[in-house]
Amino acid sequence: MTEQRRRATVVDVALEAGVSRGTVSRYVNGGHYVSSEARQAIEAAIRKVGYTPNTAARSLVRQRTQAVGFIVHEPHSVFLEDPNIGVIMLGANSALSTRDYQMVCLIVDSERDTDRVSRYLSGGFVDGAIVVSARDRDPILSVIERLGLPAAFVGHPPGITAPFIGIDNRGASAAITQRLMQTGRRKIGMIAAALDRDSGADRLAGFREALGIAYDPELVVRVPLYSFLDGAAGMRTLLERAPDVDGVVAASDAVAAGALQTLLESGRSVPRDVGLVGFDDSSWATRTTPALSTVHQPAEGIGRAAAEAVLEQIRTGDIGAGGLVLDTSIVWRGSA
Amino acid sequence: MTEQRRRATVVDVALEAGVSRGTVSRYVNGGHYVSSEARQAIEAAIRKVGYTPNTAARSLVRQRTQAVGFIVHEPHSVFLEDPNIGVIMLGANSALSTRDYQMVCLIVDSERDTDRVSRYLSGGFVDGAIVVSARDRDPILSVIERLGLPAAFVGHPPGITAPFIGIDNRGASAAITQRLMQTGRRKIGMIAAALDRDSGADRLAGFREALGIAYDPELVVRVPLYSFLDGAAGMRTLLERAPDVDGVVAASDAVAAGALQTLLESGRSVPRDVGLVGFDDSSWATRTTPALSTVHQPAEGIGRAAAEAVLEQIRTGDIGAGGLVLDTSIVWRGSA
Repeated sequence: MTEQRRRATVVDVALEAGVSRGTVSRYVNGGHYVSSEARQAIEAAIRKVGYTPNTAARSLVRQRTQAVGFIVHEPHSVFLEDPNIGVIMLGANSALSTRDYQMVCLIVDSERDTDRVSRYLSGGFVDGAIVVSARDRDPILSVIERLGLPAAFVGHPPGITAPFIGIDNRGASAAITQRLMQTGRRKIGMIAAALDRDSGADRLAGFREALGIAYDPELVVRVPLYSFLDGAAGMRTLLERAPDVDGVVAASDAVAAGALQTLLESGRSVPRDVGLVGFDDSSWATRTTPALSTVHQPAEGIGRAAAEAVLEQIRTGDIGAGGLVLDTSIVWRGSA
Repeated sequence: MTEQRRRATVVDVALEAGVSRGTVSRYVNGGHYVSSEARQAIEAAIRKVGYTPNTAARSLVRQRTQAVGFIVHEPHSVFLEDPNIGVIMLGANSALSTRDYQMVCLIVDSERDTDRVSRYLSGGFVDGAIVVSARDRDPILSVIERLGLPAAFVGHPPGITAPFIGIDNRGASAAITQRLMQTGRRKIGMIAAALDRDSGADRLAGFREALGIAYDPELVVRVPLYSFLDGAAGMRTLLERAPDVDGVVAASDAVAAGALQTLLESGRSVPRDVGLVGFDDSSWATRTTPALSTVHQPAEGIGRAAAEAVLEQIRTGDIGAGGLVLDTSIVWRGSA
């Protein structure tokens, strides 16, 4: 957390105006019991330090809600299918509970939901927010910036300045692709998903990096979502393009589980005919037969770290910046 | 929704006191601009009609939050595993979104969470609440009753008076047990789960009812949760007690999926050696091999109906009672 993005607080205003924090608080909350001299000093100080009174700031001085939003920007179908989102959420819930904060989960399924969640955040119902799966130019990001709301992002959409918690998707994807290459596979394809998010784009970039000059764009099938059905459909497309494909990197475990179903239906044996790897080490990975070789990411730890980053900002009043990248590891099971 | 549980509102107070609703509203919100005569009339009226000013009531007259809580009282592990909870939640989210209400999901994982969620509800952050998986004598129920908060329950814990939305767990369980008996199975056991909730207890009661005099308590294994792991463990116990069991009713699809894994590991073929049925028709049912014969319950419709019951109470100011029982059907697939 660097100091440079620190937002001016009522404490700065109080120091500059030479009045107590309580006086500033009363001014911000309607001006009862504030002398006209104090009022003038506070107004000058507000201009000087660049303090922006807003709903979130008012609730900081007035009364904390003791609630933190957990905002999931995913279609309903993906929210249900992606066990990682649930684990991240419960990690955040555990960390918030320990500090006696209430987690309130808000699901953004459509553009209408985006507007409503933005209004909810503006209404001062939460002291901070954790945002999962934000898109490029997500309108929720600008609302959070405008409010100066303590926030942390899971993943790293371009252009955000709030703290983010994530993993090195590119490096991990390159590593598992190399591991798959080392098993002797010669024609490796990828089912890439969610390319409108940093995680999806970075996983494809890592795949490409690992293959180097052997990279063949024809062997990359792009699907919209990290979902079982998109994995199954993507694998059908890949088999049409390259029936002799012998290695597949799937963008997530759900995608890999769908791809596995297609491979088995097409009469191929996994891993004998095709080596298949996933990403996430979610509950999908151990419920397929064979179980998935995959990248383990510390989903619960990501949720906890995001919650702690928000609580730290609430506690200090400093809006932080910077990121925290957690370690991943390869878990090699039966699918490759 | 009957009239008998209707809670007195500010409208009743205004009618009784002979003042405007706005005057009562100002009185409730701190008494600004209320004459002493009006104040006396309002205070007398409040005693007469039995009006209880509380946070939720204040937010009804003052400002609605446009938010409805969705409270899940389940351990974190079950929240992740039970796809039905997610589908109910998203059904509720869709219905609330249509009316421009924000759904805020609150997860109750422990006793500490119970206290915190109770405080959150008391704080007036939501206009109403949908409660899933309430336990017998759940403290959240008494908070909701005390606040007079518009609410609906999914399932029907004993002693609640708020509206509930559910299915006939007992009848549906009896029906699928009978269907399994009709396939010629002669030694049918049950893996019963979640007996501290009406759904779990009713599913066991239906099983017992269908078997009649053939019911053998030794063939019922009781496990704590609607979970894959409890299903796998429960099946191991059942096989120890009765290696020749040829039919199994599982309390949920997740339980059935776990039982299926144990059966396959023990070298039994499903459905040849053992016919297995689940309950819910959740995403588990179509991801096992063979797919599960099960009871379809309209999870999304349950969520929608619960949301609509809460919205109706918010709209009218009447706290309703009574229940809505939605239809189920048997879906017969490959596992029995």
